[in-house]
Amino acid sequence: MTASRRTPSTASRRAFVAGALTLATAAGLEAQAAIADDIADAPPVTPPWQKEQGAPVMSPPYGQPSKFESAVVRRENSTGSPYPTREAAVSLTPLQALHGIITPNGLHYERHHAGVPSIDPAAHRLLIHGLVDRQMIFTMDDLMHFPATSRIHFLECSGNTQNWGKPKPEHTVQDTHGLLSCCEWTGVPLKTVLGELGVKPDAKWMLAEGADAAAMTRSIPIEKVLDDALLAYAQNGERLRPEQGYPLRLFLPGFEGNMSVKWLRRLKFGTEPWQTREETSKYSWVMPDGSVRQFNFVMEAKSVITSPSGGQKLGASGFREISGVAWSGRGKITRVEVSTDGGSTWADAELQGPVLPKCLTRFRLPWRWHGQSAKLASRSTDETGVVQPSHDALLQQRDARSYYHYNAIQTWAVSAEGAVSNAG
Amino acid sequence: MTASRRTPSTASRRAFVAGALTLATAAGLEAQAAIADDIADAPPVTPPWQKEQGAPVMSPPYGQPSKFESAVVRRENSTGSPYPTREAAVSLTPLQALHGIITPNGLHYERHHAGVPSIDPAAHRLLIHGLVDRQMIFTMDDLMHFPATSRIHFLECSGNTQNWGKPKPEHTVQDTHGLLSCCEWTGVPLKTVLGELGVKPDAKWMLAEGADAAAMTRSIPIEKVLDDALLAYAQNGERLRPEQGYPLRLFLPGFEGNMSVKWLRRLKFGTEPWQTREETSKYSWVMPDGSVRQFNFVMEAKSVITSPSGGQKLGASGFREISGVAWSGRGKITRVEVSTDGGSTWADAELQGPVLPKCLTRFRLPWRWHGQSAKLASRSTDETGVVQPSHDALLQQRDARSYYHYNAIQTWAVSAEGAVSNAG
Repeated sequence: MTASRRTPSTASRRAFVAGALTLATAAGLEAQAAIADDIADAPPVTPPWQKEQGAPVMSPPYGQPSKFESAVVRRENSTGSPYPTREAAVSLTPLQALHGIITPNGLHYERHHAGVPSIDPAAHRLLIHGLVDRQMIFTMDDLMHFPATSRIHFLECSGNTQNWGKPKPEHTVQDTHGLLSCCEWTGVPLKTVLGELGVKPDAKWMLAEGADAAAMTRSIPIEKVLDDALLAYAQNGERLRPEQGYPLRLFLPGFEGNMSVKWLRRLKFGTEPWQTREETSKYSWVMPDGSVRQFNFVMEAKSVITSPSGGQKLGASGFREISGVAWSGRGKITRVEVSTDGGSTWADAELQGPVLPKCLTRFRLPWRWHGQSAKLASRSTDETGVVQPSHDALLQQRDARSYYHYNAIQTWAVSAEGAVSNAG
Repeated sequence: MTASRRTPSTASRRAFVAGALTLATAAGLEAQAAIADDIADAPPVTPPWQKEQGAPVMSPPYGQPSKFESAVVRRENSTGSPYPTREAAVSLTPLQALHGIITPNGLHYERHHAGVPSIDPAAHRLLIHGLVDRQMIFTMDDLMHFPATSRIHFLECSGNTQNWGKPKPEHTVQDTHGLLSCCEWTGVPLKTVLGELGVKPDAKWMLAEGADAAAMTRSIPIEKVLDDALLAYAQNGERLRPEQGYPLRLFLPGFEGNMSVKWLRRLKFGTEPWQTREETSKYSWVMPDGSVRQFNFVMEAKSVITSPSGGQKLGASGFREISGVAWSGRGKITRVEVSTDGGSTWADAELQGPVLPKCLTRFRLPWRWHGQSAKLASRSTDETGVVQPSHDALLQQRDARSYYHYNAIQTWAVSAEGAVSNAG
């Protein structure tokens, strides 16, 4: 019997029956595959899609994912959104379904305070004023004439990962870490544009305001403004998506996402922060003594295993690659360690290049699952020497009533049956 | 009068009147922007989209570009497609509208021979047979259990850039170079999978067959197979798009795009190439003596200026950044030179990092346009020392009846009125 007479379902059963085969590697990795020992010279049975012409080019002109991937979308938290409206809400990136480091634009997480405005780029303006030598208004054309730069950076919402208290076992990595994405951002270095205006020496802070109905505002320290702040107008090659600030956003590499103000319409320079809603009632830390600390900008070293992760089933025993992403707002990731026993022992994972500053780094470690229960965890270190803390260590530095900047080690519990759940 | 009482159109006129302002840089760059000298403490006039709630999150769950970017799509050649049907045809990436190095998946160029099949990944199979110790059939689950890797690589169709003869002045860079895209590709190194089967020592070539109705087939030399060939299932983070081979494609970094067989269903090992249609009647070179050379795999050093480029208008005189992309199938780009006088003099462009092997590299050079006519050209050099040839130099190596692997220097003519056209 040749393979061309075999049905796919038969081949599938054969694959299951054949079970784990030893990979010809020193690590003795395993894979499930069918031994096609009775195949002569023929391909597997001709599938129906090979018997007819497929869809023409440009169907559609702007391409879309396969219909078989329709479950790979952004969604709200699976255990309920804490937001009363969907205009002031979030949507989460499906990290469990992603590979590499780039987040496709259609899956970039969202956080809005008054919905996504529909902005005509020809009518959009950016005002820069306050403590500058010359106040100016820029059109999009003006800004796009400046020398540009492109950089691949992560963006993480400050409220990402709510494992402060008892973890919800049913949470997937989309629930726990889905306020995280990574794109190639293109725009004008803000310091280049400021060269046009002249910032006065006593300017220590910059206010950034969005053109959404919330007029979202944040105060940015001048050091960041003159370092790597970007006036961004493109992501992953194309112009910004509406929900990412089209036609213009501030981008502050490594800072909490909220400060990279979207739909950017105004920058004002002053001597003090403006104490906006988003830096007084929100985005502050509760310290162990009950005091509240403002202006916590940098997203510290963090990592998470995306495969296997919460809600997945391991299936038959055998080889699994443990894979995830690590990042730090302070620079490059230098090390990721992985534990399969809840942190008793650790092994160094491979870091996939290029390892870029303030960017996701994909890590990988081979693992053999024998059907035992396990606790999978990852721990990152950045180039400043900061090591991602445990939950307990983080709670020695912060009160459990905290909400923002949770960067502790994430653990996934694997049952003997192969079910993976959130262990916080 | 404060800015808040000014209409956008007034601000726009002010921007136009204010004209070029000197950038505070040594290069004396210029930009067009309004001096907002009478603005007190107010932002520009409140735009209509700031007066109402915007769209909710996840509208839609898989995000889409702004409606104002609806012209940024793939299309056929503006001067007519040479293909009789749209199932065996191409669509072109709009390079003139892209930034950085990543091509968003929705804009990746297409080349199909029998349309895009709609493949159920659960029913898809890959057969590997021929000169192997064990023939095997893999499911997608099998392949996704192997250790994976992700790499950012360009993909270029061998037929990209038809400037062999008289150039068409109206051609844009989408027409001349749009069979070029660049993504982060994730999959299993083919050599890892082959470790499961054992390739016999006398296997020198591998046949790759697609599951489309054309059963597209190409012969690949064993050296490439065991070097960096990838069984790819994801691009830019998410699973492959249907038109890029969903659920599985071969990916051969740096080789002509046609060999990275999409919808991959069969690999066969043998001692000789199979002399398929795509390597006999197509994808061969016409040499100066009229003979035909087969098996020309590597895409050599090439570059193109994407801004300014064909069909664009420069507008008011002043600063322009000349920007484009360079690439080589042999490794990293080490140098890009730019000429504004049709090749009489050259200046080194800045190469934007990270510079990766077999990947697009974005280059940039500041330029001041005074309203003079100009001829803009770029010339790349790769790490093997290969320098992109002139049109004349290329035609000393190949006959003008050639079709594939045109990698000569591209020149854009700028008129005194600022109109940019293809000068070949």
